[in-house]
Amino acid sequence: MTTDLCGRHFIAHEWHQSEASFTRFNPSTNSVLPGAFSQGTVVEVEAAAIAADAAFWEFQQTSADQKAKLLETMAKEIEQDGDAIVACAMLESGLPEARLKGELGRTAGQLRLFASVLREPYSPLLMDKANPDRQPLPKPELKLGQLPLGVVAVFGASNFPLAFSTAGGDTASALAAGCAVIVKGHPSHPGTSELVARAMARAIDLTGMPKGLFSLIQGSEPALSVALVEHPLVKAVGFTGSLKVGRLLADRCALRPEPIPFYGELGSVNPQLLLPGKLARDAAVLAEAQVNSMMMGHGQFCTSPGLVIAIKGPGLESYLAALSDIASRQNAAAMLSAGICQAFNQDVSILVPRVNVIAQGQAAEAAHHSRPLIASIEASALFGQPELLEEIFGPFALVAICDSKEEMFELVKRLPGQLTGSIHGLETEVADFGDIIDRLAFKVGRIMFNQMPTGVEVARAMNHGGPYPASTDGRSTSVGAEAMKRFMRPICYQNMPETLLPNELKASSRRLMMF
Amino acid sequence: MTTDLCGRHFIAHEWHQSEASFTRFNPSTNSVLPGAFSQGTVVEVEAAAIAADAAFWEFQQTSADQKAKLLETMAKEIEQDGDAIVACAMLESGLPEARLKGELGRTAGQLRLFASVLREPYSPLLMDKANPDRQPLPKPELKLGQLPLGVVAVFGASNFPLAFSTAGGDTASALAAGCAVIVKGHPSHPGTSELVARAMARAIDLTGMPKGLFSLIQGSEPALSVALVEHPLVKAVGFTGSLKVGRLLADRCALRPEPIPFYGELGSVNPQLLLPGKLARDAAVLAEAQVNSMMMGHGQFCTSPGLVIAIKGPGLESYLAALSDIASRQNAAAMLSAGICQAFNQDVSILVPRVNVIAQGQAAEAAHHSRPLIASIEASALFGQPELLEEIFGPFALVAICDSKEEMFELVKRLPGQLTGSIHGLETEVADFGDIIDRLAFKVGRIMFNQMPTGVEVARAMNHGGPYPASTDGRSTSVGAEAMKRFMRPICYQNMPETLLPNELKASSRRLMMF
Repeated sequence: MTTDLCGRHFIAHEWHQSEASFTRFNPSTNSVLPGAFSQGTVVEVEAAAIAADAAFWEFQQTSADQKAKLLETMAKEIEQDGDAIVACAMLESGLPEARLKGELGRTAGQLRLFASVLREPYSPLLMDKANPDRQPLPKPELKLGQLPLGVVAVFGASNFPLAFSTAGGDTASALAAGCAVIVKGHPSHPGTSELVARAMARAIDLTGMPKGLFSLIQGSEPALSVALVEHPLVKAVGFTGSLKVGRLLADRCALRPEPIPFYGELGSVNPQLLLPGKLARDAAVLAEAQVNSMMMGHGQFCTSPGLVIAIKGPGLESYLAALSDIASRQNAAAMLSAGICQAFNQDVSILVPRVNVIAQGQAAEAAHHSRPLIASIEASALFGQPELLEEIFGPFALVAICDSKEEMFELVKRLPGQLTGSIHGLETEVADFGDIIDRLAFKVGRIMFNQMPTGVEVARAMNHGGPYPASTDGRSTSVGAEAMKRFMRPICYQNMPETLLPNELKASSRRLMMF
Repeated sequence: MTTDLCGRHFIAHEWHQSEASFTRFNPSTNSVLPGAFSQGTVVEVEAAAIAADAAFWEFQQTSADQKAKLLETMAKEIEQDGDAIVACAMLESGLPEARLKGELGRTAGQLRLFASVLREPYSPLLMDKANPDRQPLPKPELKLGQLPLGVVAVFGASNFPLAFSTAGGDTASALAAGCAVIVKGHPSHPGTSELVARAMARAIDLTGMPKGLFSLIQGSEPALSVALVEHPLVKAVGFTGSLKVGRLLADRCALRPEPIPFYGELGSVNPQLLLPGKLARDAAVLAEAQVNSMMMGHGQFCTSPGLVIAIKGPGLESYLAALSDIASRQNAAAMLSAGICQAFNQDVSILVPRVNVIAQGQAAEAAHHSRPLIASIEASALFGQPELLEEIFGPFALVAICDSKEEMFELVKRLPGQLTGSIHGLETEVADFGDIIDRLAFKVGRIMFNQMPTGVEVARAMNHGGPYPASTDGRSTSVGAEAMKRFMRPICYQNMPETLLPNELKASSRRLMMF
């Protein structure tokens, strides 16, 4: 093990070792990495939950400014350790340095966005003024506030070891909302999780925040995940990962004696609608953009464009030819883990006999590498095979070829829920496709015009989520300022004396929108 | 059957009869009422869901003004038939005329509140401005909008045959959100449901809204409820009723192939905290207010104050004596249904040996009447018997007597989730109880000062919900303007041309809050 990794959990502000351990893997070299990491069990969950709950109540005594300071300090401490964190994440994820540096910057940026929201309140709060003279009963004063839900469990994601993991979006938004956080580190990058947790622990020390406010439990056993989401002190869960695991945990949360919100950001095929005018004019440009987007992170972005929907007509042949040309020059590469690579290769082998292969990338040099693939199919053939509309996680896209506008509409109607969808069209032709575009909106959490995914922005008006199965709860976003709300719930203060109101609801607050 | 009742379902804008039927009951006279009502099955669910889904897509073509007009016309048509509706509801619910007239007014008021929200948008929408010069990538324009979820199933409530039933809060907010609605009428008041549905049908005709936008399915079989919440075209559920049934349906919604939101407003004991100074000064006034609130609707309001928490000290004896005096003069009365009365009497008979009876109301004259009851218990005795903190639906309250402020805090910490909670105190003493009051806030959806429940207002800043088991989803309210949001979800429009944006997101919209 690298000398500066201890391989332990971080619980109640101490580094805690378990008897059992697990190892980590370098997916690029397909080999085990040195060192062993503590294997979390129900014992660690119990200890972390009790510490987090105690810290949660202490945390309620801190001001919005103090919470902002904590988030800013976390960002700074993570950046300070940036080189070591990125180096470790490269080893554990196989992702390139530039990508991980960018992701580290984004992680810090997310923490700072929530800090700025806490400092400069943007979300108006509602108030109904009292009317003591109303008949037959006086009208009370009502103020609508928000309270944090409690202890939040966050599951690290394999495909974003920084921005959706230990100090990632869900952790940042939960802390900003006033919650305590227990992170279940993803077993594919335990060293990265530990390094980030160290930086966060320093930030907690530096800002005098309650010990236990943040915990990291390492582990690779499904029983750990189940114990965490079923712990009575855990009041909400943030998750990024597969439909299979996400759904399993969502069901566990729903069936608890006290059901709790489960926010699973799962995945989707992110349909790309090519309108005929645009296709006729820009076939080659569209093909290049498609392959570039699909090859980001070797197809392992949740917004990877896995489905293209086009109509037969001018430009389609050129588009397919360009796709073939560009895609066949793409390299095979290792994936985030051996398991993910195996699943991709298996999914592809089942798929290939059922579709027309347009292009394959360069042949894989090793069994743990996956080879990019683009295929096509008649749209009508999808109507009876809805399973072909499910995500294949990796460098793959399917081009669905429609006979007509009507068939495109039919296909859009049949799409399952998606994180994103894009329309590629000329401004002059979109009106003719209004029905289809409107319907696409009902299928996605974010709709883009003439832009490939990701295009995700850590901003105020972002939404990253979408109808099931893109996420388990389409009412909530995992990216952007609104993500704070997933870990809060409303409360009405009726005729409460000023001294008993939270600051943002006091008469002096500029946030109050009065009726 | 009264000549003007047909006893049928209203599906796809037609009155539809089933082969099987059920009868209705007059709880006041404890006798079956004339007439038979169609017993809904999976067949009616399928027909209503298909019609509602078709209507939903048509409804998307209507403007906010048109939707407002629909809601206003519904309010007017219901008021026009007010006398007949109230007369029928009196027969079916046993509730007094004045209460039902008030409830009819509130029902119309709710419809008009949502109309006003649609006309005068109060909820700012978020926008991030584009920055084409940003490096390394241009910043896209982002606009955060909201889309309706689809077809909503609404379950009528036995205790509010108007305001939480056919045209009640969930129906009004779902229509305002842009959803189509299928109401499952409560079997205790099918005639009332039918009369309200007729008025709503006229409003749909008068405003030229899509047929199928609103359906009413009558029925008394649990299988009907399950079929409705499990129908693939149903995308959200609003429910008011018991914990037992609510939880059963919530679990069904969670375990569907596509899980959907289930908003169950269940019930609670609505704790009343009596602070010592206030108790010493106003014992008799507090006791009278307690009994009056508890006797509203014969204890069958979801905000009925079923738990009083006081500390031993000056005023307590006077308070208990006054409670005893006032409560013993209360009449026994019929309840909303024979089943509810039976459950109350059974709950009370199990409880009585475990508590100290303070007062019983006048003896019941008939087996279908329930007798008011107030009891007390040492707070410490509740710590080992948390089941005594569960709601007994009816005219009952338990006074928990604490030895100290610390014991009061302990009890508040152990409370399950509540719709409301009240603090009765002097302004001069509340600071001493800050910890307890803060903790109470985390247990309730609405916290009141020196006011008994209900105190509910159909307003902008109202919240009616609360942590489980008060509701199945404490993130949402069933009363007030915010209730619209439970039937919508966010969507981000990225770089979308103006023509493809909904009106409220166009550049001219005053709702846009820009960053």
